[in-house]
Amino acid sequence: MTQILTFLGKGGTARTFCAIAAAKLLASQGKRVLLAGLAEPELSILLGTTLAADPQEIAPNLQVVQFQTSALLERSWEDVKKLEAQYLRTPILKEVFGQELAVLPGMDSALALNAIRQYDESGKYDTIVYNGTGDSSTLRSLGLPESLSWYLRRFRQLFVNSDLGKAISESPFIQPLVSTFFNVNWTADNFAQPTNTANNLLEKGKAALADPKRMAAFLVTTQDPIEVATARYLWGSAQQVGLTVGGVLLVNSDTDANLSPEFAPLPVSVVPDLKAGDWQPLMNALPDFVAQAVQAPKPIEIDVPSRQVRLFLPGFDKKQVKLTQFGPEVTVEAGDQRRNIVLPPALSGKSVAGAKFQNNYLIISF
Amino acid sequence: MTQILTFLGKGGTARTFCAIAAAKLLASQGKRVLLAGLAEPELSILLGTTLAADPQEIAPNLQVVQFQTSALLERSWEDVKKLEAQYLRTPILKEVFGQELAVLPGMDSALALNAIRQYDESGKYDTIVYNGTGDSSTLRSLGLPESLSWYLRRFRQLFVNSDLGKAISESPFIQPLVSTFFNVNWTADNFAQPTNTANNLLEKGKAALADPKRMAAFLVTTQDPIEVATARYLWGSAQQVGLTVGGVLLVNSDTDANLSPEFAPLPVSVVPDLKAGDWQPLMNALPDFVAQAVQAPKPIEIDVPSRQVRLFLPGFDKKQVKLTQFGPEVTVEAGDQRRNIVLPPALSGKSVAGAKFQNNYLIISF
Repeated sequence: MTQILTFLGKGGTARTFCAIAAAKLLASQGKRVLLAGLAEPELSILLGTTLAADPQEIAPNLQVVQFQTSALLERSWEDVKKLEAQYLRTPILKEVFGQELAVLPGMDSALALNAIRQYDESGKYDTIVYNGTGDSSTLRSLGLPESLSWYLRRFRQLFVNSDLGKAISESPFIQPLVSTFFNVNWTADNFAQPTNTANNLLEKGKAALADPKRMAAFLVTTQDPIEVATARYLWGSAQQVGLTVGGVLLVNSDTDANLSPEFAPLPVSVVPDLKAGDWQPLMNALPDFVAQAVQAPKPIEIDVPSRQVRLFLPGFDKKQVKLTQFGPEVTVEAGDQRRNIVLPPALSGKSVAGAKFQNNYLIISF
Repeated sequence: MTQILTFLGKGGTARTFCAIAAAKLLASQGKRVLLAGLAEPELSILLGTTLAADPQEIAPNLQVVQFQTSALLERSWEDVKKLEAQYLRTPILKEVFGQELAVLPGMDSALALNAIRQYDESGKYDTIVYNGTGDSSTLRSLGLPESLSWYLRRFRQLFVNSDLGKAISESPFIQPLVSTFFNVNWTADNFAQPTNTANNLLEKGKAALADPKRMAAFLVTTQDPIEVATARYLWGSAQQVGLTVGGVLLVNSDTDANLSPEFAPLPVSVVPDLKAGDWQPLMNALPDFVAQAVQAPKPIEIDVPSRQVRLFLPGFDKKQVKLTQFGPEVTVEAGDQRRNIVLPPALSGKSVAGAKFQNNYLIISF
């Protein structure tokens, strides 16, 4: 089982220092570690080595990889073409080359997450330390299985029930046409096969995200009020995508520094000021990440007997939290993050009877 | 004509300080300024005021808006529904509410760019100061018109020429079916109408990006080697998306500080250390943004008589720059940014005869 660790926070390079130190520490404990970073030059400068799109060993048990979106896009493009060839009798995309594809917003995030998934499944690593942008966009990326599966379940059902969807599956004209162009047996539910494949992938992603032994984030901050406020905002935002935040790393030369009130009930570890090349003091100050992650509050708890859903939403006040029930699910908005809650059968389809926000918890009753 | 300014760089809050000071300076000069920021708490703390999803005036000539993706998504969703109703006889999406939509990676960027476009077109502002993430993802966002129009021109042609595309436009079965479900007259080129609308929008975006009087970025850095390397990387990356970088703001209390060799030929303005509430010294140190932007090297110059294309690619070395000609266009890759070059008719379809990289310029001969 691979454990995926990431660091969130505003600080310029502090986050990357912590990610490197964590990777070095875990490797020194005998874990097989992959440190994964972005294309920006920071990680490469701090490690003093050129990085590549494939993992390379830089120390015993420690490999480093740089997520280069253009390289990842080329590899994924081959998979897209294979998928098309499965469904379409005369593939269209074969004339388009991975090397010419432009990069759209969101591709960086989606491709990074896909790469993490592949390294995770490879079984080659005990820990993957992901040094992403550490801000809301990292959270969008890690929340992708959740948000994408919402689109799949909501829109697939709508389409299947629509006039257009029904006509495609029932019309006597459409079936023969479809078999002229497509390889698939296009019956009642046109999208069953591809959506099942996708759902399967997304369910795995959601299960990993929901398990703090598999995936956890840690906040990195100094005592600067803007950094503290940003860390608190990211803490709450992480809960909204279902990512457990295990603890706080407070960068400060004074080991008595304290930020516990701002981040209670999370443990705060004071780590020394950062200096490239001198990793040991920082490594010594790091906490046991897994132990902290499993003790941290869970982003969501569903209590069927008492008909309650409890969401842990620190870093927001009551005014910033919104609850709506427009579609078939309950939607919680906090800060700029939105979460659609899939309820268990016993509560599914029920109206919200009441909601209160206290002690950082949103408690919804059905 | 609205001018759009943005700041790029690694520094934690330095970029936001500069964005605020620039907005204040331009407003004090009588320009109608909109300062647009993200949902993170930073901007709100530095301005000492709560921000909202609609512009609010915080000083004479100075309005501030916070791009909240969930709010922007709700507004755009209404437009999507209207578009669907234009094309589809029985709209499917009417049952989906903007308030329940999940946010996917890339939506933040695309919606922010769309909001900038709308404020730009409103005619209410002389300058929009966009305080985005200031990293590669801001560049992906600003490069969206270019990258999206590549997908449109490449894939639309492929589809129209494909067996499937031809069958849809020519089959005697398909036309009557289409008119049962769609409102549009579905003849030879099925996608002419929507793609023309989209192309029109994207062409406007590309024209704005290509004009340094309309859009320019400035780099913000300290003398920290990692920040300098990141700023240089973002400089080169900005050229790749076609964004002009006008100059550098070097944050340093020592006015004799120097970074000119690293950023030549850009002018470097030394700005004082930052302190919230004390904006005047910082405002006084800021350069004339438009004057610098129009003098900066252009990202691309196409010289038809000498059959040359010259790309300005600072911050990269020769090994990091790749030129390919797989598809119908020439693709340049540098760092992790890719650019497909649309050639004028005189050079279009010609093979590359030679390429050299010297003095930060990639010179391609046809």
